[in-house]
Order: sequence, then structure tokens, then C-alpha cells
Amino acid sequence: MKIKTAIYPGSFDPITFGHLDIIRRAGKIFDRLIVSVFTHSAKKPMFTVEERVDMLRSALKGNKKVKIERFEGLLVDYLRKKKVNVVIRGLRAISDLEYEFQIAAINRTLYGGVETVFFMPRQRYTYLSSSVVRDIAHFGGDVSKLVPPYVIKKIKSR
Amino acid sequence: MKIKTAIYPGSFDPITFGHLDIIRRAGKIFDRLIVSVFTHSAKKPMFTVEERVDMLRSALKGNKKVKIERFEGLLVDYLRKKKVNVVIRGLRAISDLEYEFQIAAINRTLYGGVETVFFMPRQRYTYLSSSVVRDIAHFGGDVSKLVPPYVIKKIKSR
Amino acid sequence: MKIKTAIYPGSFDPITFGHLDIIRRAGKIFDRLIVSVFTHSAKKPMFTVEERVDMLRSALKGNKKVKIERFEGLLVDYLRKKKVNVVIRGLRAISDLEYEFQIAAINRTLYGGVETVFFMPRQRYTYLSSSVVRDIAHFGGDVSKLVPPYVIKKIKSR
Amino acid sequence: MKIKTAIYPGSFDPITFGHLDIIRRAGKIFDRLIVSVFTHSAKKPMFTVEERVDMLRSALKGNKKVKIERFEGLLVDYLRKKKVNVVIRGLRAISDLEYEFQIAAINRTLYGGVETVFFMPRQRYTYLSSSVVRDIAHFGGDVSKLVPPYVIKKIKSR
Amino acid sequence: MKIKTAIYPGSFDPITFGHLDIIRRAGKIFDRLIVSVFTHSAKKPMFTVEERVDMLRSALKGNKKVKIERFEGLLVDYLRKKKVNVVIRGLRAISDLEYEFQIAAINRTLYGGVETVFFMPRQRYTYLSSSVVRDIAHFGGDVSKLVPPYVIKKIKSR
Amino acid sequence: MKIKTAIYPGSFDPITFGHLDIIRRAGKIFDRLIVSVFTHSAKKPMFTVEERVDMLRSALKGNKKVKIERFEGLLVDYLRKKKVNVVIRGLRAISDLEYEFQIAAINRTLYGGVETVFFMPRQRYTYLSSSVVRDIAHFGGDVSKLVPPYVIKKIKSR
Repeated sequence: MKIKTAIYPGSFDPITFGHLDIIRRAGKIFDRLIVSVFTHSAKKPMFTVEERVDMLRSALKGNKKVKIERFEGLLVDYLRKKKVNVVIRGLRAISDLEYEFQIAAINRTLYGGVETVFFMPRQRYTYLSSSVVRDIAHFGGDVSKLVPPYVIKKIKSR
Repeated sequence: MKIKTAIYPGSFDPITFGHLDIIRRAGKIFDRLIVSVFTHSAKKPMFTVEERVDMLRSALKGNKKVKIERFEGLLVDYLRKKKVNVVIRGLRAISDLEYEFQIAAINRTLYGGVETVFFMPRQRYTYLSSSVVRDIAHFGGDVSKLVPPYVIKKIKSR
Repeated sequence: MKIKTAIYPGSFDPITFGHLDIIRRAGKIFDRLIVSVFTHSAKKPMFTVEERVDMLRSALKGNKKVKIERFEGLLVDYLRKKKVNVVIRGLRAISDLEYEFQIAAINRTLYGGVETVFFMPRQRYTYLSSSVVRDIAHFGGDVSKLVPPYVIKKIKSR
Repeated sequence: MKIKTAIYPGSFDPITFGHLDIIRRAGKIFDRLIVSVFTHSAKKPMFTVEERVDMLRSALKGNKKVKIERFEGLLVDYLRKKKVNVVIRGLRAISDLEYEFQIAAINRTLYGGVETVFFMPRQRYTYLSSSVVRDIAHFGGDVSKLVPPYVIKKIKSR
Repeated sequence: MKIKTAIYPGSFDPITFGHLDIIRRAGKIFDRLIVSVFTHSAKKPMFTVEERVDMLRSALKGNKKVKIERFEGLLVDYLRKKKVNVVIRGLRAISDLEYEFQIAAINRTLYGGVETVFFMPRQRYTYLSSSVVRDIAHFGGDVSKLVPPYVIKKIKSR
Repeated sequence: MKIKTAIYPGSFDPITFGHLDIIRRAGKIFDRLIVSVFTHSAKKPMFTVEERVDMLRSALKGNKKVKIERFEGLLVDYLRKKKVNVVIRGLRAISDLEYEFQIAAINRTLYGGVETVFFMPRQRYTYLSSSVVRDIAHFGGDVSKLVPPYVIKKIKSR
């Protein structure tokens, strides 16, 4: 048997309990997971790439299967460079599905061998996203049920 | 029996016949309605909060059940302050549903007792939104079937 | 203030924790709720109308606001007879939305004054339905997280 | 590393190129795949369980990773018996998503450790299903782009 | 310029104002329309094919562009026989879209040249379907806003 | 028979194989097609209107039915000016449907006689859009399966 590796790409701005749930589920299937922070974004992020990597490190400390990286450019180029052809994504709702299928389909067009594997998060995380966390944090709301303690600390220190 | 109060939050930039339809429907169920203009927005609004409140006042003049307010910050904080735990929302289409359910779910997470009650607008208003009105107004199009006369006057005076 | 009454119609074959969640939410808004078992159905039900009413009685015992009834024929005719013009429905997912909007729209066409008010169940009940319960029960599966104890007893006694 | 096994349950009435596409994709991730024909069905199938297993055998001949089985009753009971906790499913369209999420959510409720992993078929198979094949076959239409040759032979011999 | 002909296939059990709306819209684009009653159906229809054709004739009397036919078997075989390669369909809602796209995609697979052209009905007919009409008629409800007078007469005479 | 003309409006920033597929399909139904580049846009385009018209000209060279134009302002005003009342749109996915139905419904409200006719693109273009092309081009990815050669040349020369 070969070692099975998958890449979980995202903005993780910031990491939420929803992301951690997907990582835990993917960890049952794969031997190694590379959680990769996408460093380019049209819109201004809340946290820098360094802060986002830092929060991921804190949240995933002790998880031997997981490695945290960053990447820039096209996901397919990054996959080729890493010699990994499996992508992990969480599917929450219908709007997710269409967006995720579009990305997955285009990735297949650009890189024939790539496979996207979808996981369903816990139902209580169905409506959780980083952007919801940012909105609540913006108004000083309580995000303790949505993100790990270290992220809360980081939000408060801003 | 207690007085039943509900809050109808929104940008109302500007108020449309669709909003008025939801207010009329909610008025059959609730004794008092607080229509609350959300004063913060990432994107630049067409009308100032004052103008939006003004247009709501004109459109709802004579409706004894309705009070018009403004609020800033998290809806749940505003609800707590007002001691109201019912939110009114209109549901037009599928894309609405996912967005509205996300908001409602997050509000419940932040404030356990809050209940969101959804109404279905008249079918002819299914595809009507403030942003459609703004787009048409931008190009000088006729919005007389979409918004009340006072709003048309306000649009023309710009 | 008038007494606010609403009707919650359904097959309730059998009642689930999802239905009870909607009843609890509607109870915050309405003074009286009539839970009405629809007695006609194209497909053969699992439980007789009497058994379904019996299970509702058991599950809602002590709830002073709720009255349990049965009806046959068109919902709008029943609403007219009861002099009630508010219908309660739970909205779980997209497929629900289209079906529920169709019913609500047709009801409005048949009876102008009827208003359907939608509630969102707890997220953990998003995918729960009577038909799921029947399927699991058919194969002797454990439905204790899905329905009240009295329903389990009824299922086992078959 | 442990051997990774997954179960791909379905009616396979009959197997289509869409199913084979999902099996091929899952084969990149898992060491062993058990394709399991669900033997109970409310509606009358086109092919007997034996014929469906036979067609799967023909279509998957030579694929060392795949084992073909049949099961009856609840999927979670079968998973427990097989000591497998990963289920494979293809996701084609929105209507699939809600149905599949409902099944996956209920399976989690019944058996905490079960994980459903979703794959996206080739786009050309987005609208392909066994029921479409049965409908076309019923009227003597050409299904050679939809199912393997052995299935065509079986259809013709009826 | 060639004469443009299109086929509008359906069960029309019975014809509704929604169907007539689609026919009127298609009539703006096409020179000739063949409204074709599909004579086979898994489920028992309310009206016989003869009655459905009869109701279409009554509803479309005087419309010079329209011809009413019946067909059995695969739509693509019928299209080939008629030497018509354009199919008309109404799109009401999301659930329609997936079903219609599946049919259109399979038809293309079976008959390369076939083109399906979709029209959007009047918004007030968004939730109208023959099955809704049958349900209301079953309980003696008023369908006068949903179907033409001749259909009402036919329903009453049953 | 009258000449049947339709307008296919869009941003075409840039033209993709998906657009060309819709044009080819519409060409089977209509005698003349006006492909109209919408010159106003809230967001900054990748290509100027001149470049977009230029790329359309290159891609549609030799197609006698097609005329390429530009327009500004409301689509309904442009339609009235051109004395054309048929609009062509491609429908890819659910999210498209709601957006397109909103536009079509508002256009009907503003200009009673306008009819929007929807076509379904080839399945392989289901997830293709100009914005996907721009994203890939931004990172220097290969778009040769998504747009015509002249567009690739234009992208490279930037």
C-alpha cells in the first residue's frame, strides 16, 4: 500500500470548527494531509498569511498526519509540484456545491489526474464559514462556539 | 395574552413593494412591528440612513402597528436591547433560503432564544430586490411598479 | 389584542422530534395551535389516523396551547371552517422550499386571506422526516434519537 | 498504514458508466472497494439481484480491488458487520445532494463512526442514472453510450 | 427562411393556464407548434389520451400555428419521425431545472441534433402544475384560476 | 414568415467556448443574432469593450447570421431601440437560473413584450464562465480548452 496524501486548500481566514471537523474526517481516510493556505486573494483578508498559518498550527498541534503549508497561483500547479492529486473539500450547502463543482471541474480540465473528495461537516457547522466569523468579530460578538480559543485570542488582540 | 412584537431588519435601500408586502403579512400575526434600518454596510448605499428612514416613514404612514428605527452592530445585540426575540424575514428564492438560514442559524448560536419567522411574498415580487431597483434607477429606467411614489420622487431628485 | 391561532397540518406518520421542535417554536408566537392530522393519503400510511392522533396526544400532553384534530379534504376548506387563516410549516431544505411554496401559493390562490408562516427547525433535525423514521423502523433500526419514547413503543408493538 | 476499505452501496439496476466512473475514482483513494447491491426495494426492479450482481461482475472483471456483495436491511448494520466505516457515493446534482446528505446524516445518527465520502462523476455522466437507462430500454432506445456491452446484451435478451 | 417548427411534448393531464402561457410564448418564436400528448405513463392518468387531446383542442381552438398530436415511445424517435429537432419546455423552478436538464441531456445523447428551448412562464404560474390541479379537483376545490373553462366542465362531469 | 431576430447580451470578458456553443444553438432557431457587449460594469473588466468586440469578431468570423454590437444602459431600452423582443441566454446551473429568472422577470415588468429564451450548453461547458477564464489567465494557467485561439493570443500579449 502506498501512503495516501491529500491537500486541503483554503483561505482559512480564520480557521473555524468547521474546517477542523473536515480535517478530522479526512484524517480517517488519508495517511497525510497538507493543509494549504492560499496566499493570494482579490479581497483584503482579515489575517495575514503568517497569522493564518500560525492559527492553523495552534489548532492542529499534535496532529501527526497534518502538515501546514502556503501556496500561491493555480491549485493545479501546486498539486503537480507536490506530486499530490487528491483535493479535500467540505460541502455544506447547495451554493457550496455549485461553486465547488465548478472549481473541481475546471481543475480536472487543467490537470486530468486530480480528484476532489468531498466530506459533509457536522450538521451544526452547516452554516459556519470564515466570513461569518469575521462579520461577528467585526462587531465584537462572541465567536467562542465557532473557532478555537487561540483564534479568539488573536481576534481580541486586534 | 402578551403583546407580540417582532423586528424586521434590513437595509431598505430603498424600500420596495416586496418589503411592504412582507410587513403587511407580518402585521396579521404580530401586534407591533419594528422595522429597523441596518446602518452599517460594507458597500456604499444609494440612500443615507436618514433618507431610508424617511422613505419607510412615508410608505408606512398611518400604520399604527409599525415603528421605524435604526440599528448598528450585531442584530442579536440589538434584539437583546429591545427585549424582542422574533425576527421577520421574507423568503423569495432558493438563494435567499441559504443566506437567510445561515443568518438565522448564526443568530440562534449567538442568542439562544431568538426565533426567525419567514413569510413568502406575493409571487409577482419573487424577483424584486432593492438592488434591482438601484440598477434600474441607475440607468433612468421606470421603477413605478417596484417602489412607492415617494421613493420614485426621491430617486428622480438625485 | 386578539387571540392568535394557527394550524399546523401534516401527516405525522409518525410524529418526530422535528415536528415537536416546530410546535415549540410556533408556541412562542401563537396563543393557540391546532395540530391537524391529514387523514387522506395516496400512499398507505404506517399508522392509522387514530394511532397518529394518539401519538401526538402523548407527545404533546400538558401543552395547554395545543389542540389535536384531524381533517380531510382541502386544507383551505378546513381553514375556512375553523375560521383560522394562519398555517405553520417547517422548512428544512431546498426541496422542502419548492414544495412548501407551491402549496402555500396554491392555498393563497384558493383562499386569499391565508398566510403560511415558516419556521426553521434545529439544525440537527434538518434531515429528519417521518419517512426516514418509517424506513429505519422497517428494518428494525434504532429511532430513539428521532422520535419520542411513546412512538418507539408503538413501533415495537407492531 | 492500514488497508483502507470502503463500501459503495446501491441498487445498480443496472450498473451504468456513471457508477463505473465513481468506482474508478474511488479506486485511486481506497485499497479495497466493496460494491454492495441493496436487495430490498419498495419498487419492483428491472433486474433481479442475481442479474445485477452478474452485470457488476462482468463490468468489473479484472479489477483486483473490487469485491461484489449484496446486502439487505439497514446500511449501518451491514457496515458494522463488515467492520467498514467508509461509504462511497457519487454526487451529480442538487437533488442528489439533499437526498445524499439526508442519508449520510441519518447514518451518522445511527452509527457515529460512519463517514460518507463523495465523488463527482465525469460531467458527461451528470444526468445519467439507472432509471434513465430503464426508461430508454423500456422503449427500445439505444443505451450503448450509457451502459457497458454486457448490460446491453442483458437488456436485449429480455 | 425556413418554416420553424417545434414540438411541445407533455402529459397535459389536464392542460393548465401554465401550459397555455408557454404555448403563447413559443408562438412568438416558432411558425408552427406541435403540442404532443405523451400516451404512455407509469402512473394512472386522470384523463384518457382522447380527453386530454379534446381539452387541448378546445383550449387552442383558433390558434392556426398549433397542431395537436399524440405519441408513444421515446421522444427522440418521435422527433426523428416528424423531422423536427426543436423541443419546447417551460421552466418553473429549481426542481424543474434538474429534471428538464436531465431529459434534455439524455435526448441529446440519443439524438445529436435535438435542441431544447426553455421558456419561463408568467410568475403567477410558477407553482402551477397538472398534478396540483388534479389534487384540488379530487377534493372538489375551485380550479377556475388554474385551468380553462372547458377543463372545469370536464372535471365536474366526472 | 418574418425574419426572426434575437439579441444575445453579455459582458463577454472574454468570449468562451460556452458562449460560442449557445450562439451555435440559437443559430438553429433564429435567422439573425445580435451579440451585444454590455459596456457598463460595476467591476473593472479584464478587456476593454473594443477588445471584447474584437475577440467576438474573430471568433464569429464567417457566421453570416451574427452581428456584433455594443450597448449601454438598460437592456429593455436597447431592445426597444433595436425593435427586437427576444433575448437569448444560456442556463448552466441552479445559481444561473435564479439570477437569469430575476433578470428576465424584471425585463418583463419593464417591457411587457420581451421574451427570454434559454438554451442549455454542452455539458462540458456547464462550469465554464468568463470569470473562471480570467482567474486561470491571471495565474498564467492554460485556457486552451476554454477559449478560442485568438483570445489566448490576446491574453498572452498582456
